[in-house]
Amino acid sequence: MHSETHQFVLRPQWILPVNPAGVLLENHCLVVQDSQIVHLGQSDALPPAFAGAKVIDLPGKILLPGLVNTHGHAAMTLLRGYADDLALMDWLNNHIWPVEGEFVSHEFVLDGTTLAVAEMIRSGTTCAADTYFFPDAVATAFRQQHFRGQVCMPVIQFPNAWASSEDEHIHKGLQFRDDFIKNNDLLTTAFAPHSPYTVTNQGFEKTLLYSEELQIPIHLHLHETAQEVSEGLALHNSRPFARMQSLGLLSPLLQTVHMTQLTDDEIEALAINSVHVAHCPESNLKLASGFCEVAKLRAAGVNVGIGTDGAASNNNLDMLEEMRTAAILAKNLAGDPATVNAHEAVAMATIHGARLLGLDHAIGSLEPGKQADMIAVDLTDISLQPLHHPVSQLVYAASGQHVSDVWIAGRQLLKQGQLTELDVTALRAKTETWRQRIAQRGRS
Amino acid sequence: MHSETHQFVLRPQWILPVNPAGVLLENHCLVVQDSQIVHLGQSDALPPAFAGAKVIDLPGKILLPGLVNTHGHAAMTLLRGYADDLALMDWLNNHIWPVEGEFVSHEFVLDGTTLAVAEMIRSGTTCAADTYFFPDAVATAFRQQHFRGQVCMPVIQFPNAWASSEDEHIHKGLQFRDDFIKNNDLLTTAFAPHSPYTVTNQGFEKTLLYSEELQIPIHLHLHETAQEVSEGLALHNSRPFARMQSLGLLSPLLQTVHMTQLTDDEIEALAINSVHVAHCPESNLKLASGFCEVAKLRAAGVNVGIGTDGAASNNNLDMLEEMRTAAILAKNLAGDPATVNAHEAVAMATIHGARLLGLDHAIGSLEPGKQADMIAVDLTDISLQPLHHPVSQLVYAASGQHVSDVWIAGRQLLKQGQLTELDVTALRAKTETWRQRIAQRGRS
Repeated sequence: MHSETHQFVLRPQWILPVNPAGVLLENHCLVVQDSQIVHLGQSDALPPAFAGAKVIDLPGKILLPGLVNTHGHAAMTLLRGYADDLALMDWLNNHIWPVEGEFVSHEFVLDGTTLAVAEMIRSGTTCAADTYFFPDAVATAFRQQHFRGQVCMPVIQFPNAWASSEDEHIHKGLQFRDDFIKNNDLLTTAFAPHSPYTVTNQGFEKTLLYSEELQIPIHLHLHETAQEVSEGLALHNSRPFARMQSLGLLSPLLQTVHMTQLTDDEIEALAINSVHVAHCPESNLKLASGFCEVAKLRAAGVNVGIGTDGAASNNNLDMLEEMRTAAILAKNLAGDPATVNAHEAVAMATIHGARLLGLDHAIGSLEPGKQADMIAVDLTDISLQPLHHPVSQLVYAASGQHVSDVWIAGRQLLKQGQLTELDVTALRAKTETWRQRIAQRGRS
Repeated sequence: MHSETHQFVLRPQWILPVNPAGVLLENHCLVVQDSQIVHLGQSDALPPAFAGAKVIDLPGKILLPGLVNTHGHAAMTLLRGYADDLALMDWLNNHIWPVEGEFVSHEFVLDGTTLAVAEMIRSGTTCAADTYFFPDAVATAFRQQHFRGQVCMPVIQFPNAWASSEDEHIHKGLQFRDDFIKNNDLLTTAFAPHSPYTVTNQGFEKTLLYSEELQIPIHLHLHETAQEVSEGLALHNSRPFARMQSLGLLSPLLQTVHMTQLTDDEIEALAINSVHVAHCPESNLKLASGFCEVAKLRAAGVNVGIGTDGAASNNNLDMLEEMRTAAILAKNLAGDPATVNAHEAVAMATIHGARLLGLDHAIGSLEPGKQADMIAVDLTDISLQPLHHPVSQLVYAASGQHVSDVWIAGRQLLKQGQLTELDVTALRAKTETWRQRIAQRGRS
């Protein structure tokens, strides 16, 4: 009957569909046909239509939606650990920006993004928002690895290897969109004006014009540090948030990143305008950027997703670890150990992240009709015993190393901890070549 | 020549001796004889005395001192994930304490501690301070697994399965010390009066008397939460810290745990009296206990070690993860990304922890004459590439799952990620039996 379609049945020990919220299923199975989930039900009541499909048993494993990383700079994985433990401006001015100025190219971005994708698939991420120069290289790497993502079109007033003005960024971005985004099911795009301190009002206005015309999201670093706010206040006589508000940016299409400095009024404005927040707890901690008030945002009704940020400020892309840090940090900041419980933490890392990216109609939960973006996590490790509550173990005890299987749009990219399609040997060789080239820079 | 002795040479890619601070060695080797490190030098200049010893190459791996977990309740690993996301007093009164009251026994503590030891060895911990009822069961589990630790003698005014009064706790503790601690190289002990709110002044006075007489450390939960401080103030008309100070407890023998609520004067008193602090960042975050001001403590000259606390409030015993959280949390709390750099984070998790336990003469760094407590971490994983700086990768990107080999007092307990001596199958079966017994409680 289904000779021309790809169909299989997964029978994991547990299924965490995320929607409906708080539900954990046992003795259930999920059927995938081509790229879609077509059935979720009790294992002993499989509809006859799927009786002939291949069955994959996953004993001891929990199946959940693939994790959604709502903010990162994948290519910067090539700079992982290159310059740590430095003050932010020293880090940027004397290390990160000079190295980027010297090395960033289409090839650098392609290789660095592929390295990041390898790590993300290995640790259970199936969709990522990425912001970097050469989005065509990012898109090529994502497409080559069958990885889902929002590949942003960067806008910044400073010249760089990709573009030399805000106008050229927008122009090249739209050209990139025409060439790469249409007719590809796995990729979407957004404008990424870098930040209030690196984009002019004109740049924001032009970005907003195209965003509204084409209904493309805007992805923006905002209120990352107290210094950004005080300097913005000195320069523009208003806090960066107020400046963005007066420019008309606040809308459901706006994805704000970091947001460690927020007044109650600003939180209310976010909620009223359905603006999203991409929370990057480990980057904020490591760069000493401040604390994002996650519990307050959620209580106000703001949609909050989770992001790792780039590996140069994290220093890994492990979303299970990031989810855990997000949950426990939110508890302490709020003074309430009951806030952001384990189920809510998973929702932030899946369906809320999907909503932030405008993709919750397609991914973020395991439901018939949605894309088959799924991960299995092996809960049999001795460090996860005893299993009183599998979801607690998943959030508070597991890490990306426990992820065993990953599917994106029905295609299996990780099987029993091994990448199925990516040529890891070639990737290692390329990565080592970049390390040597960057290392020699300091010695010249 | 050495036919009666056990001797081997380790040649890892990198050696991080921790002392001297900040040094990372390449092309070096380390020689172990019986339980001791007897040589550390360049690989091409191995003294002739060791020429016949077995050589173990560890390509791609970094060798460092075993991690020292300065605070935990190993047996509570059986309650991992049993009751999460609850307010502290709800958690204790309605979940943890009732279950403990029903199940804690010599057998529970022996099995739970063995489970914890398995996880700790797997993730690179070679020494742990443990505080729980039935210290004889803790000591038995540690000894059976050749694990190093400070097994505390608990003192608490409330009756429990092990003892019914403060006096009986002290009496049974001293009996335990006589039976288990003497003539065993791997175990030490300390008094562990539970906290200011569960021990009377008389209990503290009697504990202090024996501590001074026998030169035994005191291990104490102190200023874990703001509530503890305010309630202590209401009851005793002084903050718990001041009460401990007036009782005469402040000394280099005092190991304080948590310390999230500290005035500058209290930090100065800690420094002047050489009191140690066991910092448990993830437990503090998850239970919303508050933030320990690590950078301030270190700037004042206070010795700070790292602890996981029990798995019921963490929920794992992964000291690499804990070290990372300690470092990045300290940065953000201090507003300084340069504080607690990668080398300092490793020192906190090794030599500073050893100093806290009074064991820095024997462990905590790789130096000839010290015990051969060592771990190798595999840095070849794709999630750790490229390797610009191995110590950055170790601290900021690696997790306990990357630990490949572990030796305690020269004996190899983990080899290429596999526990060499512990019967994991039997351990899993016992753990599952406890899970079922505890689960049935709720259904009766």
